[in-house]
Amino acid sequence: MKDERLKKQIDFILEIDKLKHIYRQTLLTDGSRHENDAEHSWHLAMMALLLCEHATEMSIDMFRVVKMVLIHDLVEIDHGDTLCYDDEAIRIAKERERKTAERLFCLLPEDQSEEFRMLWEEFEQQATPEACFAASLDRLQPLLHNYKTGGYSWKKHGVTRDKVLRRTEPIRESSTFLWNFVQELIQESVARGYLNRN
Amino acid sequence: MKDERLKKQIDFILEIDKLKHIYRQTLLTDGSRHENDAEHSWHLAMMALLLCEHATEMSIDMFRVVKMVLIHDLVEIDHGDTLCYDDEAIRIAKERERKTAERLFCLLPEDQSEEFRMLWEEFEQQATPEACFAASLDRLQPLLHNYKTGGYSWKKHGVTRDKVLRRTEPIRESSTFLWNFVQELIQESVARGYLNRN
Repeated sequence: MKDERLKKQIDFILEIDKLKHIYRQTLLTDGSRHENDAEHSWHLAMMALLLCEHATEMSIDMFRVVKMVLIHDLVEIDHGDTLCYDDEAIRIAKERERKTAERLFCLLPEDQSEEFRMLWEEFEQQATPEACFAASLDRLQPLLHNYKTGGYSWKKHGVTRDKVLRRTEPIRESSTFLWNFVQELIQESVARGYLNRN
Repeated sequence: MKDERLKKQIDFILEIDKLKHIYRQTLLTDGSRHENDAEHSWHLAMMALLLCEHATEMSIDMFRVVKMVLIHDLVEIDHGDTLCYDDEAIRIAKERERKTAERLFCLLPEDQSEEFRMLWEEFEQQATPEACFAASLDRLQPLLHNYKTGGYSWKKHGVTRDKVLRRTEPIRESSTFLWNFVQELIQESVARGYLNRN
């Protein structure tokens, strides 16, 4: 019984190795290549350890935030990353990701499958302060990467300031302090010509 | 004051992006390319969430294990990965890594700098059940990758079964159950010709 449980866990661990092949729109900060989802998820987990103290909600559960950012992109394993500023593409992607979640989490023992699914749902719906903060990190990190690479993916996809402001909305909800920082960063990006005003 | 604190945190977050450029000896499980430290650290954190239940020590603090595996390879940022079967190279690497730890953790606000340094020291010395379990995951993951890639890095560096058994020692100490699994995996690797007996 315990052997069967371990077999499922190992199968899942091997399966998720594929996340290292899912490349994102953003470049690494030195602009040398695109970032992949596994690296991105690690980076967000590190950011959670450092930045959770800035959440407006005082009693935030940091470990829950870390778990969410570690697993939040697993559902991209089958079909890849979707441009976060294309509404129709996002709608289609959401459906596909639900199917991947179904397939992927079912590989695990039932209790862990249930835990991962619930964490992922919580993140998707931004239903809790932890999920909202996890989403904030997921918005802040590519903003930093875009800033460091002269607005690479903003320029490539014609993304404007208003779209970035809308996309970073969870940050406003979860941390007034980080939201102020983000507004300055966006303002500076416009001033430097990394990001178009309209 | 709070702005100064955030500045340090953001500087650190940008600096550690370099971990995505540190390539390891092991290949991804499909053999397509070498794995980097950031991806590897993410993978270990996922393994911690799933496998901590198999630790012999019942009261293991899972979040502490996760934190340790997330930060354990940061010290490779300046000089890269070292072949874990070359004793002299390991000794030299340890000195360099200590200097990198000094440089890197000093970027952070003092309390977080202290926390990260202590977590890293704990991992290095395998001083606690959590550190020992974190080290076990760090041994188990490349074993799985080697198994899936026909013993790629074992063959490349002439690593034998005895060396692998010595290297995986922390697993024996931290989980009898995982140790049995690892012995079977090594036995199977020898049988399939992925790993030389002597």
